[in-house]
Amino acid sequence: MKLTILGCYAATPRTLTNPTSQVLEINSHVFLIDCGEGTQVELRRKKIKFSRIRHIFISHLHGDHVFGLIGLVSTFKMLGREAPLNIYGPKGIKEFITLQLKLSNSWTDYPLHFHELTSKNSEMVFEDEKISVRTIPLQHRVYCNGYLFEEKPGERKLILSKVMNYNIDVAYYRSIKKGKDVLLDDGTLIKNETITAPPKPTKSYAFCSDTRYDEAKISLLQNVTVLYHEATFLESHKHLAATTGHSTAIEAGMIAKKSNVDTLILGHFSTRYKDISLFKEEAETVFDAVMVADDGKVFDF
Amino acid sequence: MKLTILGCYAATPRTLTNPTSQVLEINSHVFLIDCGEGTQVELRRKKIKFSRIRHIFISHLHGDHVFGLIGLVSTFKMLGREAPLNIYGPKGIKEFITLQLKLSNSWTDYPLHFHELTSKNSEMVFEDEKISVRTIPLQHRVYCNGYLFEEKPGERKLILSKVMNYNIDVAYYRSIKKGKDVLLDDGTLIKNETITAPPKPTKSYAFCSDTRYDEAKISLLQNVTVLYHEATFLESHKHLAATTGHSTAIEAGMIAKKSNVDTLILGHFSTRYKDISLFKEEAETVFDAVMVADDGKVFDF
Repeated sequence: MKLTILGCYAATPRTLTNPTSQVLEINSHVFLIDCGEGTQVELRRKKIKFSRIRHIFISHLHGDHVFGLIGLVSTFKMLGREAPLNIYGPKGIKEFITLQLKLSNSWTDYPLHFHELTSKNSEMVFEDEKISVRTIPLQHRVYCNGYLFEEKPGERKLILSKVMNYNIDVAYYRSIKKGKDVLLDDGTLIKNETITAPPKPTKSYAFCSDTRYDEAKISLLQNVTVLYHEATFLESHKHLAATTGHSTAIEAGMIAKKSNVDTLILGHFSTRYKDISLFKEEAETVFDAVMVADDGKVFDF
Repeated sequence: MKLTILGCYAATPRTLTNPTSQVLEINSHVFLIDCGEGTQVELRRKKIKFSRIRHIFISHLHGDHVFGLIGLVSTFKMLGREAPLNIYGPKGIKEFITLQLKLSNSWTDYPLHFHELTSKNSEMVFEDEKISVRTIPLQHRVYCNGYLFEEKPGERKLILSKVMNYNIDVAYYRSIKKGKDVLLDDGTLIKNETITAPPKPTKSYAFCSDTRYDEAKISLLQNVTVLYHEATFLESHKHLAATTGHSTAIEAGMIAKKSNVDTLILGHFSTRYKDISLFKEEAETVFDAVMVADDGKVFDF
């Protein structure tokens, strides 16, 4: 699981800071999450192949999370894309993009599928054999969702020495890996857990931006491997967090702690702060495993 | 008259090239012309004060000329702008911007005036005491206008020695500067041109992008000081220019020659070419005074 931060600063793109966008590579998928202005250039800078992006998840329709989407969609067309593109985001995102395509007279040649969200409850938006993605309803000034990316458990691993010891026929291996017990010809029942080891632990990633402090999402976030949580403000501007629907570093730390996550990554920093290491310092007063995002930074888990 | 090229490359923004946008500073105005994705960052990079931009001229609604506009409009709001902003562009540009503002729930607090264009003839879109701006109808795949920025002639200059020689009363100076003759008390008529010098020569700037080769605009462009003309392709890709509604460097040179302009600046280069000096070489085969634009380049005239 590899997370590439293309941008992690709030409000407007600036000379040295990009608005929100990130790429999650997990189980051969390349998921793009949010798409602020300039995202396509940052993707090029990080040498991420445009053709590998099949799914884009948009949290909400504030400009610093979505103004780069129309450019990316158009560039895909110019590059001769044929593969379908799936865009997940709040209701309105289809009109947002298609009106611009219409007015600029540049319909895409490739299939563009919009998955518009309206629910205030968590829902599954993507699923295949190995991965599921569900929304995390967030509390912001406008309708907003985070996204939870979860690996599905793989098959159990055969302990070959034991399997051979029982002289189990190869034909049973497939069902044993799926967790089935085995009934031998002599009537002996071999319990699955005595001949297999558990599958490789699964990993999960939760993206939560933008959001005010809100404990409702804690049940969804239980035990996730990595939580990216917005921390727009330091404690000194706690009052601004409350009025603008954002979180402080300490509030992000509290959510991480109550959700028992492995690692917290902080992002969406207000550009008023010169030293983002202060976010880490403040969050660490309530939670241990804190990292700070920064534009261009890559995290491997 | 100062021209700052923020971006002058065709199609998509890339790591090292920006789509079309430029700033023309003329007679205390700061005019923004076109606004591809990333323009607001380039404005910051060139330290151009956002508050000085009161008028934005958009040629057409292709993404590489307009996808940065919504971000700039939104950033103006976040910076607390109060001054009105005038946006000139093809019909549809109002819906293009206002729908995005509506869906992102971020109406501007400052007055936003759209001047939507539909005419196929040149028309005056802005005028004050010192400057006029009119459209230059262009032939492209979609409805498209260039813009012609012209200084108005200033007052004629008194030749003080001569004026005093005739003993002309100071009360007449104002009308003399405006070109009036003077009738002396003894009945002598003093012709204006004998006591004044012509005003400072006026300057003009014509922006023509995107356009196929089209001689219809030559009458409008006669004797302009500086012509920026698109040259997307070199001669080797002349067939592409024809099919995509663009021009070659030589075609731009021909327009400059037939319009008798002082200086031609080439821009809107396809990113397929590594060496943009080839555009200058080719255009120079038909016109002498050729310069090439490049991102970040500043021209003083």
